[in-house]
Amino acid sequence: MKLYNVPNPAPNPRRVRIFMAEKGLDLPLESVSLMTGEHKTPEFREKNSLGQVPVLELDDGTTISESMSICRYFEALHPAPPLFGRTPIEIANIDMWLRRVEFALMNPIGNVWRHADPRTAKIVKQFPDFGAANRETSFNAMRWLDRELGGRDFIAGETYSAADIAALCTLDFAGFIGLGIPEECDSLKAWHARVSARPSAAA
Amino acid sequence: MKLYNVPNPAPNPRRVRIFMAEKGLDLPLESVSLMTGEHKTPEFREKNSLGQVPVLELDDGTTISESMSICRYFEALHPAPPLFGRTPIEIANIDMWLRRVEFALMNPIGNVWRHADPRTAKIVKQFPDFGAANRETSFNAMRWLDRELGGRDFIAGETYSAADIAALCTLDFAGFIGLGIPEECDSLKAWHARVSARPSAAA
Repeated sequence: MKLYNVPNPAPNPRRVRIFMAEKGLDLPLESVSLMTGEHKTPEFREKNSLGQVPVLELDDGTTISESMSICRYFEALHPAPPLFGRTPIEIANIDMWLRRVEFALMNPIGNVWRHADPRTAKIVKQFPDFGAANRETSFNAMRWLDRELGGRDFIAGETYSAADIAALCTLDFAGFIGLGIPEECDSLKAWHARVSARPSAAA
Repeated sequence: MKLYNVPNPAPNPRRVRIFMAEKGLDLPLESVSLMTGEHKTPEFREKNSLGQVPVLELDDGTTISESMSICRYFEALHPAPPLFGRTPIEIANIDMWLRRVEFALMNPIGNVWRHADPRTAKIVKQFPDFGAANRETSFNAMRWLDRELGGRDFIAGETYSAADIAALCTLDFAGFIGLGIPEECDSLKAWHARVSARPSAAA
């Protein structure tokens, strides 16, 4: 089994590496060069027709793409420590928070990157006004998450979960493209310091 | 337990209703009026701070939002028939396809609706050029899914799953906003006829 990987600041492969670190899993990583467009070659598209990284390749050649789906595979094989919940309500609640992080927070941040960042201008057709408007949407999503966190330790409650991993990778990538956490978001900043202090955050 | 619901053509509440029909579950539905903005009131935001429908409310007042998270709650309580997979590889594969449907297909269709449809012009700030460009992205996603389906019966393989439910609700909503399946997509049209013939599709 091996993982096709891209180094930081790419947020999606990092989600899998943090997840593996939290589970105590180790796996060979094979670098894919985004610079040379290796992920868009016919060979790589045999592994993932969408041409995206990461991809997990099993020993029989089966491939799984989508970072969180790879994480769910590891969770099913190695249930402890649970990062997607154990009881029905935990499972639903963590999935809800994972989706909220992806749709409410990651989506506008991704829109800024794709449509208003000079580094993607040569790769994709940009709509700069749309991208620029997503800056405020991104900050508002951070403010919403800050209010939701309130006094609790982690995104989905009192226990670290896959939702924290998604949020950490998303917010660190946001910082990389100039969308830092607003100054007034004390709960979100405290949460960020808390999850960044875990050894897995270095993955 | 009850489900806060919006009737068709809203795609997200329908996903939960189809899922329940496939599981043989029945539940009181409470209609939320989007027309009067009931989902954006402080009372409803107590149930889901993002002001979105559907929301599942348990007897103790706990609420779960996000359609697929509600479905995962039902799956954990009532595992048969499995719609999110049983083995690690099935679980990963169905989740991968669910995410592909949402990110590659539902996302551009949603962008057309939000940014290029006259019915949303009064509700949200539109970026019409961006919305219009997403029409071709949506059709290309349908063509990609058509190729991926090839000869197989269902989105994630030989068994009906949550990924089929998400794709059906997405494509029926696409049809509602004028994004019909391209004529040449024979596999996708055959799949659409196959899943639409199931009794659950009437939900």
